[in-house]
Amino acid sequence: MIRVSVVGAAGYTGGEACALLARHPGVRIEGRFGSRRAQTAGSELPPLDVETLLDPRPDAVLLATPHDVSAELAPRLLAAGARVIDLSGAFRLGDPADYPRWYGFTHPAPELLEEAVYGLTEWCDRRLDGCRLVANPGCYATSALLALRPLLAALDPDHGIVCDAKSGVSGAGRRPDAAYSFAEVSGNFRAYGAAGHRHEPEIRQAADLAPGRSFVFVPHLLPVVRGILSTLHVVFRAPMTERDVAGLFHEAYERAPLVRLLPPGELPELAAVAGTPRCDIGFVLREQGRRGVIVSVLDNLLKGAASQAVQNLNRMFGRDETEGLL
Amino acid sequence: MIRVSVVGAAGYTGGEACALLARHPGVRIEGRFGSRRAQTAGSELPPLDVETLLDPRPDAVLLATPHDVSAELAPRLLAAGARVIDLSGAFRLGDPADYPRWYGFTHPAPELLEEAVYGLTEWCDRRLDGCRLVANPGCYATSALLALRPLLAALDPDHGIVCDAKSGVSGAGRRPDAAYSFAEVSGNFRAYGAAGHRHEPEIRQAADLAPGRSFVFVPHLLPVVRGILSTLHVVFRAPMTERDVAGLFHEAYERAPLVRLLPPGELPELAAVAGTPRCDIGFVLREQGRRGVIVSVLDNLLKGAASQAVQNLNRMFGRDETEGLL
Amino acid sequence: MIRVSVVGAAGYTGGEACALLARHPGVRIEGRFGSRRAQTAGSELPPLDVETLLDPRPDAVLLATPHDVSAELAPRLLAAGARVIDLSGAFRLGDPADYPRWYGFTHPAPELLEEAVYGLTEWCDRRLDGCRLVANPGCYATSALLALRPLLAALDPDHGIVCDAKSGVSGAGRRPDAAYSFAEVSGNFRAYGAAGHRHEPEIRQAADLAPGRSFVFVPHLLPVVRGILSTLHVVFRAPMTERDVAGLFHEAYERAPLVRLLPPGELPELAAVAGTPRCDIGFVLREQGRRGVIVSVLDNLLKGAASQAVQNLNRMFGRDETEGLL
Amino acid sequence: MIRVSVVGAAGYTGGEACALLARHPGVRIEGRFGSRRAQTAGSELPPLDVETLLDPRPDAVLLATPHDVSAELAPRLLAAGARVIDLSGAFRLGDPADYPRWYGFTHPAPELLEEAVYGLTEWCDRRLDGCRLVANPGCYATSALLALRPLLAALDPDHGIVCDAKSGVSGAGRRPDAAYSFAEVSGNFRAYGAAGHRHEPEIRQAADLAPGRSFVFVPHLLPVVRGILSTLHVVFRAPMTERDVAGLFHEAYERAPLVRLLPPGELPELAAVAGTPRCDIGFVLREQGRRGVIVSVLDNLLKGAASQAVQNLNRMFGRDETEGLL
Repeated sequence: MIRVSVVGAAGYTGGEACALLARHPGVRIEGRFGSRRAQTAGSELPPLDVETLLDPRPDAVLLATPHDVSAELAPRLLAAGARVIDLSGAFRLGDPADYPRWYGFTHPAPELLEEAVYGLTEWCDRRLDGCRLVANPGCYATSALLALRPLLAALDPDHGIVCDAKSGVSGAGRRPDAAYSFAEVSGNFRAYGAAGHRHEPEIRQAADLAPGRSFVFVPHLLPVVRGILSTLHVVFRAPMTERDVAGLFHEAYERAPLVRLLPPGELPELAAVAGTPRCDIGFVLREQGRRGVIVSVLDNLLKGAASQAVQNLNRMFGRDETEGLL
Repeated sequence: MIRVSVVGAAGYTGGEACALLARHPGVRIEGRFGSRRAQTAGSELPPLDVETLLDPRPDAVLLATPHDVSAELAPRLLAAGARVIDLSGAFRLGDPADYPRWYGFTHPAPELLEEAVYGLTEWCDRRLDGCRLVANPGCYATSALLALRPLLAALDPDHGIVCDAKSGVSGAGRRPDAAYSFAEVSGNFRAYGAAGHRHEPEIRQAADLAPGRSFVFVPHLLPVVRGILSTLHVVFRAPMTERDVAGLFHEAYERAPLVRLLPPGELPELAAVAGTPRCDIGFVLREQGRRGVIVSVLDNLLKGAASQAVQNLNRMFGRDETEGLL
Repeated sequence: MIRVSVVGAAGYTGGEACALLARHPGVRIEGRFGSRRAQTAGSELPPLDVETLLDPRPDAVLLATPHDVSAELAPRLLAAGARVIDLSGAFRLGDPADYPRWYGFTHPAPELLEEAVYGLTEWCDRRLDGCRLVANPGCYATSALLALRPLLAALDPDHGIVCDAKSGVSGAGRRPDAAYSFAEVSGNFRAYGAAGHRHEPEIRQAADLAPGRSFVFVPHLLPVVRGILSTLHVVFRAPMTERDVAGLFHEAYERAPLVRLLPPGELPELAAVAGTPRCDIGFVLREQGRRGVIVSVLDNLLKGAASQAVQNLNRMFGRDETEGLL
Repeated sequence: MIRVSVVGAAGYTGGEACALLARHPGVRIEGRFGSRRAQTAGSELPPLDVETLLDPRPDAVLLATPHDVSAELAPRLLAAGARVIDLSGAFRLGDPADYPRWYGFTHPAPELLEEAVYGLTEWCDRRLDGCRLVANPGCYATSALLALRPLLAALDPDHGIVCDAKSGVSGAGRRPDAAYSFAEVSGNFRAYGAAGHRHEPEIRQAADLAPGRSFVFVPHLLPVVRGILSTLHVVFRAPMTERDVAGLFHEAYERAPLVRLLPPGELPELAAVAGTPRCDIGFVLREQGRRGVIVSVLDNLLKGAASQAVQNLNRMFGRDETEGLL
């Protein structure tokens, strides 16, 4: 049994992680903590206390904490010998210089950014085996990268990549904010992050896009609780057939149990993945195969956060990738 | 032109009131203010300042302010010669002793409770003409009372009255509260106010129910933005025909332009009144006319608040009741 | 392994049943069929063919079929030696004379009405063990009866029982009907079945209410996909304490793993049971314990249909009641 | 007074048109008809009968009818001397050869395609004055074209234009279709029209895009009742400043009372235009002004259909463009 503790268990993501771990046959939940040092009113969770958390020391800790809390906490846990899967953005970007701009703080442990494995599970090969620190990818980033990476080599570098993404509101977390009230969100729809969203540099980095390569990411807020749908608009180097594109996707995911490919010309819908640990991908070709529209859907709280963390946990400890997830 | 100022114009109710007044041909909006002495971040409204509000003195002030703010503010406005329509609960209950229990404060102006006219427009006769202070009814209370009052004399006093009411979330106002977030409300439904809701004594008083008379009011939170539907379950003294009951309703509302009666056996729906200043009422009889189920629907922000305030304003100033509303 | 076939697997209820059975460790799905003799366009299911269904004969058949189809089909399946759990209303009412009025057809197998066990699992004692035919209760009926039955002996027979119930739209099934379109249901709420709903006689019968006993059932349509919340308004013979009422509920359900009782004064919410096989019940007392408001919530497709069918299947075949459900 | 009749008044669009015309001070509604020759069950409208419709002959007829019905009906109405505003696609495309592919019928009156004025009001100059036949634009097309046309000359012809559009469900009309049921749409989101949507050739034509110019239009179905939000992704010939782009929009719309331009860097939201006759447009620049993201929002039933029809009616009859709309 892997002994796992969860910090930030009162949030949507942490709560989903606890639910998954509770029914995982190979895991024992050692402890569940809030994400703050003081206890939140109304929460039944004990506040975060590192000494309690480490006594006894769990095998792994899932951090569903604010970015800056994760950045402070992870080094202490690693130093004590625990392995860490961090669901925040604290270890996703490789360059410490990016943190002030995108996350609003100077990184307190820049030496860990290189060690952290970016946990887009399907693209991690063997790097997760036995690693100490996983930076669990962002929800938008997971959605965009799973759709984009198999096609990268086939894309025309002289043309931009557009990722027009739409997310449900649980992505904003459980917090008192009138902007996410039912009265404001119901019947509404809007783009946001116009000035640049922090998942954009994450996607650029994980897709290894050259500095001058055009990539535009525009997120929108959907009036649904769960799920992200990303529509990618791409231009190929040379005209592609449906068979060509399907081939690239099959090559990438034929051994990925949690990615489902739709037949060419069919596009996936959000409801099919809500509540599941899966990402569904479909595509259509336009303009005689010169352009492609790729659509991926996933549950932002699961494949976009908690279930991908469990996938990574399974891989870190040498277990079957889907254990506890299906 | 009636010169009107609105305090609390940044809230849902105050905003609706401003929109109605702006297109009212007989009204000029003199000023719009926030409901607090300090300016709210992000609001374009000036903070509440009584001197500014009274210079020049408007003919009437609509208060869409918190209960305690209204209770403090109304006496000062009246003293300066302005007439006041208060959309809070500050002047709805006649007995000052009820305020600590139901509203959490000792009433600062108990002498005004007797003077205030309870503005359930259709039942005000001539009391609104020229009055100085109107206590605009609560949204649930309006819905329950319009359905109940025509039948009161026909009800069996040995049996209770049940009001099972359901409201959209805008009734809770515009405020940052995770309980009203889209993620919590969407796909959800729940009863609340189990220990007693402050509209219950308001309804008892306005329906003139004897102290020992059984009346149970249970509100529920609907996953819609606007609207209240109240289902009343009543027992008649003697079996009634549909014609009997329809007769009572017609007698009560034949001259009420903003109450619409459905044919016997038909029940109204929320969507038909959302965005309108109207209350729709329908009923069915059960058990050979011994019992009745009465359903009323209205828009909580309009007939349950802002448009009823404008109805009352029209009547106070001798204008047609529906002016600016249809 | 219990070999089970499902008829009507393309509907919401049948689909949920298939999903539950597919992950049930003690069940093998033998076949899945549409509910009509001709194949529905777009469906991947084979049309209903009794010979195919019975070759080889499954141990049990779940019928998620229209009422009249179930009434025709069940006798043939029983005659062939299969056991039947019928999710329609075809075997719920004991008196064949009630079928023309409430279901619109003359019952073709009235002799089975007495044999059929009304499968409100928590109240079936040992009658499910080895029985041949289960009439799985209606969704509203399950919700009302679980809340009402523990209290029946304590209620004042001179006062009526009111069940003000609210259901999500999946209760209407998967069918092309503009009344259930998103544009009509979203933001809307309405009562229906004013002239009497067919779950009313079902509840009367299963609660063993005397013919003259007043019972009013009013269903409403909620803008949510899943779930029923029933608010019951009752009058006790004598004033009750919270402890009295809690005692009655605990006595009834202390051994019921799928009924969860809330602390006195707390009322349940729909979202807590959506997607679960559970019914949550809470209550508040009013008027010094003379009246009670009981609220129950369940997922209409699960505890109100498919998961209760699996609960019953487990009991029929001597397995643990919750197997495959938690 | 302009005497106007409406055909197809039972649909969402026709119903909105009737509501607008009913409160238009310069219009008298002469007749309202269903869109079929036989009366629809449940409708209170008389069935479509051309003789009744033309006796007496109204000044103008609004057709909110299926494409093929409009194509048959318009010539007869014009021949009788009525002027026609057609809200279907029957007269939007200039080339009769496009009708079999995009609309599934051979056009019965190809000679009218050249005469019909494409009624994107803000771009019609004086062509609406006194014209006989208006092809009211599609909802998606209105949204895309209002955002795109001011920028066309500034775009790089070597790069494609992407229009990623999202519409509420009322765009599909009032019809019994399980795909638009609440249970299927709520909590869901999906792209559709993957193989090409009929508004794509309409946009290409109205934007005068050269045959080889890349333009990709991908519509999605939002879980909201009303509204379209289109996100356009464009590449400029040369880097643009916010001031450059704002200048192009202001030049285009400075005299357009129903287009509202947001400050540079701000993007509009759906709720702000739902229920209004307005289109709101905002933009952000990316990659040092080489790329732009333009977002437009409108109410698909109003500016995307009925209110634009009234705008056009006003212009055809020499009245103020906004009469009856604000």
